Amino acid sequence: MSAIETAGQKKLVLISGRAHPELAERVAAELGAELVPTDARTFANGEIYARFDESVRGCDAFVIQSHTHPINEWLMEQLIMVDALKRASAKRITVVAPFYPYSRQDKKGRGREPISARLVADLFKAAGANRIMTIDLHAAQIQGFFDGPVDHLFAMPVLLDHFRRTLNRDDLTVVSPDMGRVRVADIWSDKLDAPLAIIHKRRDPMVANQVSVHEIVGDVKDRWCLLVDDMIDTGGTISKAAEALKAAGAKGVTIACTHAIFSGRAIEHLSADFIDQVVVTDTLPLTEDKQFDKLTVLSIAPLLAQAIHEVFEDGSVTSMFEGAA
Amino acid sequence: MSAIETAGQKKLVLISGRAHPELAERVAAELGAELVPTDARTFANGEIYARFDESVRGCDAFVIQSHTHPINEWLMEQLIMVDALKRASAKRITVVAPFYPYSRQDKKGRGREPISARLVADLFKAAGANRIMTIDLHAAQIQGFFDGPVDHLFAMPVLLDHFRRTLNRDDLTVVSPDMGRVRVADIWSDKLDAPLAIIHKRRDPMVANQVSVHEIVGDVKDRWCLLVDDMIDTGGTISKAAEALKAAGAKGVTIACTHAIFSGRAIEHLSADFIDQVVVTDTLPLTEDKQFDKLTVLSIAPLLAQAIHEVFEDGSVTSMFEGAA
Amino acid sequence: MSAIETAGQKKLVLISGRAHPELAERVAAELGAELVPTDARTFANGEIYARFDESVRGCDAFVIQSHTHPINEWLMEQLIMVDALKRASAKRITVVAPFYPYSRQDKKGRGREPISARLVADLFKAAGANRIMTIDLHAAQIQGFFDGPVDHLFAMPVLLDHFRRTLNRDDLTVVSPDMGRVRVADIWSDKLDAPLAIIHKRRDPMVANQVSVHEIVGDVKDRWCLLVDDMIDTGGTISKAAEALKAAGAKGVTIACTHAIFSGRAIEHLSADFIDQVVVTDTLPLTEDKQFDKLTVLSIAPLLAQAIHEVFEDGSVTSMFEGAA
Amino acid sequence: MSAIETAGQKKLVLISGRAHPELAERVAAELGAELVPTDARTFANGEIYARFDESVRGCDAFVIQSHTHPINEWLMEQLIMVDALKRASAKRITVVAPFYPYSRQDKKGRGREPISARLVADLFKAAGANRIMTIDLHAAQIQGFFDGPVDHLFAMPVLLDHFRRTLNRDDLTVVSPDMGRVRVADIWSDKLDAPLAIIHKRRDPMVANQVSVHEIVGDVKDRWCLLVDDMIDTGGTISKAAEALKAAGAKGVTIACTHAIFSGRAIEHLSADFIDQVVVTDTLPLTEDKQFDKLTVLSIAPLLAQAIHEVFEDGSVTSMFEGAA
Amino acid sequence: MSAIETAGQKKLVLISGRAHPELAERVAAELGAELVPTDARTFANGEIYARFDESVRGCDAFVIQSHTHPINEWLMEQLIMVDALKRASAKRITVVAPFYPYSRQDKKGRGREPISARLVADLFKAAGANRIMTIDLHAAQIQGFFDGPVDHLFAMPVLLDHFRRTLNRDDLTVVSPDMGRVRVADIWSDKLDAPLAIIHKRRDPMVANQVSVHEIVGDVKDRWCLLVDDMIDTGGTISKAAEALKAAGAKGVTIACTHAIFSGRAIEHLSADFIDQVVVTDTLPLTEDKQFDKLTVLSIAPLLAQAIHEVFEDGSVTSMFEGAA
Amino acid sequence: MSAIETAGQKKLVLISGRAHPELAERVAAELGAELVPTDARTFANGEIYARFDESVRGCDAFVIQSHTHPINEWLMEQLIMVDALKRASAKRITVVAPFYPYSRQDKKGRGREPISARLVADLFKAAGANRIMTIDLHAAQIQGFFDGPVDHLFAMPVLLDHFRRTLNRDDLTVVSPDMGRVRVADIWSDKLDAPLAIIHKRRDPMVANQVSVHEIVGDVKDRWCLLVDDMIDTGGTISKAAEALKAAGAKGVTIACTHAIFSGRAIEHLSADFIDQVVVTDTLPLTEDKQFDKLTVLSIAPLLAQAIHEVFEDGSVTSMFEGAA
Repeated sequence: MSAIETAGQKKLVLISGRAHPELAERVAAELGAELVPTDARTFANGEIYARFDESVRGCDAFVIQSHTHPINEWLMEQLIMVDALKRASAKRITVVAPFYPYSRQDKKGRGREPISARLVADLFKAAGANRIMTIDLHAAQIQGFFDGPVDHLFAMPVLLDHFRRTLNRDDLTVVSPDMGRVRVADIWSDKLDAPLAIIHKRRDPMVANQVSVHEIVGDVKDRWCLLVDDMIDTGGTISKAAEALKAAGAKGVTIACTHAIFSGRAIEHLSADFIDQVVVTDTLPLTEDKQFDKLTVLSIAPLLAQAIHEVFEDGSVTSMFEGAA
Repeated sequence: MSAIETAGQKKLVLISGRAHPELAERVAAELGAELVPTDARTFANGEIYARFDESVRGCDAFVIQSHTHPINEWLMEQLIMVDALKRASAKRITVVAPFYPYSRQDKKGRGREPISARLVADLFKAAGANRIMTIDLHAAQIQGFFDGPVDHLFAMPVLLDHFRRTLNRDDLTVVSPDMGRVRVADIWSDKLDAPLAIIHKRRDPMVANQVSVHEIVGDVKDRWCLLVDDMIDTGGTISKAAEALKAAGAKGVTIACTHAIFSGRAIEHLSADFIDQVVVTDTLPLTEDKQFDKLTVLSIAPLLAQAIHEVFEDGSVTSMFEGAA
Repeated sequence: MSAIETAGQKKLVLISGRAHPELAERVAAELGAELVPTDARTFANGEIYARFDESVRGCDAFVIQSHTHPINEWLMEQLIMVDALKRASAKRITVVAPFYPYSRQDKKGRGREPISARLVADLFKAAGANRIMTIDLHAAQIQGFFDGPVDHLFAMPVLLDHFRRTLNRDDLTVVSPDMGRVRVADIWSDKLDAPLAIIHKRRDPMVANQVSVHEIVGDVKDRWCLLVDDMIDTGGTISKAAEALKAAGAKGVTIACTHAIFSGRAIEHLSADFIDQVVVTDTLPLTEDKQFDKLTVLSIAPLLAQAIHEVFEDGSVTSMFEGAA
Repeated sequence: MSAIETAGQKKLVLISGRAHPELAERVAAELGAELVPTDARTFANGEIYARFDESVRGCDAFVIQSHTHPINEWLMEQLIMVDALKRASAKRITVVAPFYPYSRQDKKGRGREPISARLVADLFKAAGANRIMTIDLHAAQIQGFFDGPVDHLFAMPVLLDHFRRTLNRDDLTVVSPDMGRVRVADIWSDKLDAPLAIIHKRRDPMVANQVSVHEIVGDVKDRWCLLVDDMIDTGGTISKAAEALKAAGAKGVTIACTHAIFSGRAIEHLSADFIDQVVVTDTLPLTEDKQFDKLTVLSIAPLLAQAIHEVFEDGSVTSMFEGAA
Repeated sequence: MSAIETAGQKKLVLISGRAHPELAERVAAELGAELVPTDARTFANGEIYARFDESVRGCDAFVIQSHTHPINEWLMEQLIMVDALKRASAKRITVVAPFYPYSRQDKKGRGREPISARLVADLFKAAGANRIMTIDLHAAQIQGFFDGPVDHLFAMPVLLDHFRRTLNRDDLTVVSPDMGRVRVADIWSDKLDAPLAIIHKRRDPMVANQVSVHEIVGDVKDRWCLLVDDMIDTGGTISKAAEALKAAGAKGVTIACTHAIFSGRAIEHLSADFIDQVVVTDTLPLTEDKQFDKLTVLSIAPLLAQAIHEVFEDGSVTSMFEGAA
Repeated sequence: MSAIETAGQKKLVLISGRAHPELAERVAAELGAELVPTDARTFANGEIYARFDESVRGCDAFVIQSHTHPINEWLMEQLIMVDALKRASAKRITVVAPFYPYSRQDKKGRGREPISARLVADLFKAAGANRIMTIDLHAAQIQGFFDGPVDHLFAMPVLLDHFRRTLNRDDLTVVSPDMGRVRVADIWSDKLDAPLAIIHKRRDPMVANQVSVHEIVGDVKDRWCLLVDDMIDTGGTISKAAEALKAAGAKGVTIACTHAIFSGRAIEHLSADFIDQVVVTDTLPLTEDKQFDKLTVLSIAPLLAQAIHEVFEDGSVTSMFEGAA
């Protein structure tokens, strides 16, 4: 044989965009690794530049970016990093997007609309991504938008673990803020062995012009209500739900969600008296102006680190959730 | 035969992003058309939404966007519009990007860099673009980055026409601001029948640390100098060139360029005493704070309109430049 | 010029698989066209063969197939027809799948599952389909599985028209059979100006082993209940829902659905005493053994014909639903 | 360096469809492995579901399916399994199709026909297959239909080994059943050191309407004839050939073929008096109703196992046939 | 509506490579068109350049090239022309390759061989070809190598027409030069109403080292033999066949073939005494040194012109052969 | 677990086309490997055939070809080899093209031109190449033409090393032969600590019809001039430049270039009296008729070998140039 042979080897590298480096650093620390030193910059006209200071040739590369405001900047930065990795001969490129951008534009509600969540999957593919890792997709069907493996993680174990330690389950009721989230709330109800209530928004037939009433299905009087959702954007809907619960006699309201987008007047909404606690994860960065007294932030980094480890070592991500909660 | 037959028909539609609607409106006016009414919005968390209010089914669609600051927002908006057109059964989609974004990142200068200009071509393709129309690419090779037709237009006829009418050609000298632009300056020199001078930046061997001197090749003393470039970003380089020309005895300096990016301290640089005139086109929007006394803005809209017309009618874009100037 | 020029022309052809030729014939009749004579056969070992007896060169071809049992046979037949059209130089190929096959496998519920609805979209693409036309997708996100235009039609106008003429709306209540269908039921409730009720299935805490109770949210006593769903497969769930409604005092139960799959013991389930009427469309064929007294079948052919006409003529499919119901 | 490094490792997994699990189990036994436990099911409406009960992340996966009747079901099941493997991060996916489906539709015999054998290759590709392993293709050109490696194995060594042990070569003649198989028969003749005869079907000029006579080229009187073919479907052709040989004085007729499709009246045809023996392999399952006294079934499993081993270990499949027979 | 509408129009353009411009000119003349004036050149280092002198925007372009020696030059020239057409916005590009290059390397005969005929199809696709038109493929399966329509024409009607006028059919016998061509020869035999004979090459068991004898199946004594083949390369095989026919008592031998490659010592072989006539088509150019007394060249141009006309007009190429001969 | 596990392993194989086997052999010797024995042939009609005599399954394959005259033959041979490697299950295929073919046709200078350098990248991709390794691209943007990693090496270190040892740097001046090469010459000037001169070709305004004068910018009188270029084709331009330098008083002229194409009258031009030395590398073969007294050929093999080693071992190619010269 004319060939030269050597033993194979696998190398894992972690790369972070500039949107939320703290999260990436926590993940790296959990893995006992360091982030690849990267020169990322924005030029005067807004163009972004990125270059890695170490060889990534043959590596299993994970590019972490949190898609917070300004979301298009961070998306473009991640695409540029993926392009640079591809051209630098990385062996496999996994986009780590804890909060999947444009996940709410996942279908055409009307004619001539885009399906931006599919577009984002196509852009990642075009740039050179082989895989996607993400947490709590707004619609699980988004997994099918990418032509390749998607590791879809769940923040629920992290949140459940917290609530088991902090909430009194004797008078706890899990509440779904609308019809669309009932399935998820049902699982919470099961895991916490607590009854379920549902809020049904309907137009008030007595009042004109889209005024809606919050009809509560299930028993919430004198109960501590745990309102669960996947994301909080401007916080308007969820605070209205909390208000309705208190009006119906709830003795306390805790809001739990994975993705703390906190846009617009979110802090004002969430600071209302009828909300007792807000518990979120750090999939998105929470700058100081987005912090407030009632807020608890749980880190998603150990979950991400474990998933990255399993992916790198060809272990099972599915098994991470077996016996969970 | 079982088939139903009808005569074929072609429909042209113009769509504009929100970066520079004035340009798109001027193009539409030249063509005798109207822009498709479009609902484009940015949500609280920065995600962009776009929807067309009229059917675009079977149309030959041209999506015009000016890639000004914030460039990634406008790029993403254009990609979303292309996706929406594709899903709405547009027959052919042409991205009109008068200033091609990321055109300066057209190669790997060092290892582990992206080639963002190629990435942009891939993103347009992934979104569904069939063709690209652009003006004065920073490097003509970028045409080869796109897997499909690229209509590469030149602003030179527009600028030349202006200078023929306004400049005294008796004492005119065309100046290339650096070695890389000599070929283009040479064509100007030919078209205006004026001699050529070149500025050669070299490190000063007498002074340490990258101090460069502007060596002027050719005769500029008592001449009116026409400095030609494809784009002005922060304006630092071109104003240094102008200063050097005045120091060498030039009696006037006119700067001509296609793409007026005007970032950072550009207005300050260009307002300097040693610059007499700045003539640019409107490929990029010039908001009020980017306007100043010496500035003349020529509209590129007639050129774009004519090219779009030729593309739609299967005419020849090449012939637009025959006998030009 | 050296070229030969002629006026363009468009030709529409309709092709039908063997699963449900009656539907295709009805569509053709509506359009005033005929189906392309096609030789489709199944060989002894199960391989399928198809050939068109007329030229389809340059045509806008619509291939209609109803994905009924045996669903994989009919899917494969349609793929073979698309391949034959592609190789016969059809200009554009639209897969018409009134019931989208595998639409319920639209996400990975657990690790190592397929996303067969995406796979189906990929198979259509691989065979050569340019577009898909379908009715009432189980999840609207499936539109995003196909890399191209998807015309997503709604059967609701057809069904609503029937109910407006046949049901007494004074004592009518629209019922959603589970939490997942509330949004659709809400629209029905609005269109028929009738109140909404919801059935919530929950485990009975008193009885072990997954026994569930049907909790009814909303008022159904002495009301005529219109249970709406997108598809009925074995009919078990919907008949349990009907039974619960009657037990709660409903005076009548009408079931409305688009896709009458009617597998297994469906006829038995739907013939139960507590069901008064079943109204479906003919997206899937209803052989004699699938017919029963209480069943009314409305034809979807006029809707499909109109949509095909609009697609061929570059009209607007969206506008078909404006002012609907 | 920031990277984490570990030694590389390779994992082989075998997966079986439900068409012919015995073959897959034999292959697994030969390799000293076990099949991945798999939950494969057909729902009431005919849709197929498959899920693997163990992690396949990073594996070199071989998916074995025998494309027997109902062939489209088994093809679809295999495509669904490939999709599930792709989404579960298998490293490399090899479709093992001992009998390549639709291999006889390998060209357009007339206008507007499909090329289904190419379509099948495209479907495998679309689902995510990286490689194909198959045995005795009807036309070797089918290798070129797949854009990737095709391991094309030959059953001849298995069959030859049997005949060397069981047939008296002194009076043996190898017979090609028609002109199209002469090349293969020639190799058999060479390997067994036996003369060759050919059957040439031609229209009988004396009788109208496509009645054909079997002209035998070569000497078969008082010889034991070994009729070799790649597949037997309904068995009509080969039994006519056997009858003609006996009529021409052959003292015995043994039929050898790789793929025992045995559709329609095959068992009746092959049980005729003028056929003495039928020897086939188990590339396709032979249920009890397809068994008969004269039939001998040789297992192809050792050959498949060895090929899979070589592919996994980066050995040479080509060398498997060196010095063969 | 905002759109601009105009009537559609179709334009056909013919482009020729430099290998065999006479054929392209004949095709153009038949169509009443002219070839697009093209500047095609080979530079000193062998690189080829091509540019069209007229706009081809929106055209239905047919690029004709004859793949004669030096075959790789002409293949590359055609690929470059296709690339130029794609970038110049041609609407549809058909590669016209009367003789398909590398058609004999259509499968892997042994391990580690290329399938160059598939590679050629992939190269045409990569350059931008939408369709292929070719004549008498060596193996019809090559149609399946291209992912798109292939118009596969047959030269037989042209040749048959000639022989019907020139040959005495009373004592005519059609001869297949080997087993692989029997099917084609059978059709000739049918069309000319003449008996069939077959030449079977086999190793002579009496003589060592691959010496083969030409066994003739069928009656040729005192018959005029028409030897039919798809191509003649060096002519060795076919001249040996002719010699064997004369030795067996044939009174005359006419050779008919579509593709006159005529490499190496072909002229010498074909000029032998035992060959009376050679009739070929002009799919490949026959320079003066390839001409000889017994040679008749029939033009394929009318056939190509008619097929191009049908493709352009969306007629039926299949119908061209109905009632043929 | 059902899987079989083994340790991973990597194998490097080197394959050479027939254009310049000496270079490939030198590379192999540097690496301590041997070229894979390969059967490459050209048939009588010009078709090329290639087959490898050893298994390449699972290998990291590097296919070296020098694109010299006849350049299309060698390009096609390399494409065929890549196709054979792909089908033989090579794990990764790197095209090594020391001189990138068609690199000068890297943009559309006028309408309806090809971009052949992009076409070549597409052809490599279509054949199955995963990566490209090349030296001194004519335009660095060509890196962006390939959708994958391009290792762009520089011959400068090899040449500089030679000149440092052989040239007297006291009176050395680096000369750029035209405006387009100034940037490269500037780096040479820096590395050799020698002043820079530039030749500017301009039309002579005194003489009609494109007569150009060579204007020399910078001091060359009594200096030894080192004229640096990336390639020499016919040598006309560079010899004119040398002549101009001598006419301007240069005491000596050394020409340095990477790619010695040496077409047409190159040897005659380079042998002129006013040229003292020509130093090139062996990226292209220099047959005996291309050798002459003043010519020195430096081998690029060690550079290629080191780069291949780094790519195979996942080292850094970028680091090869750190501290270079």
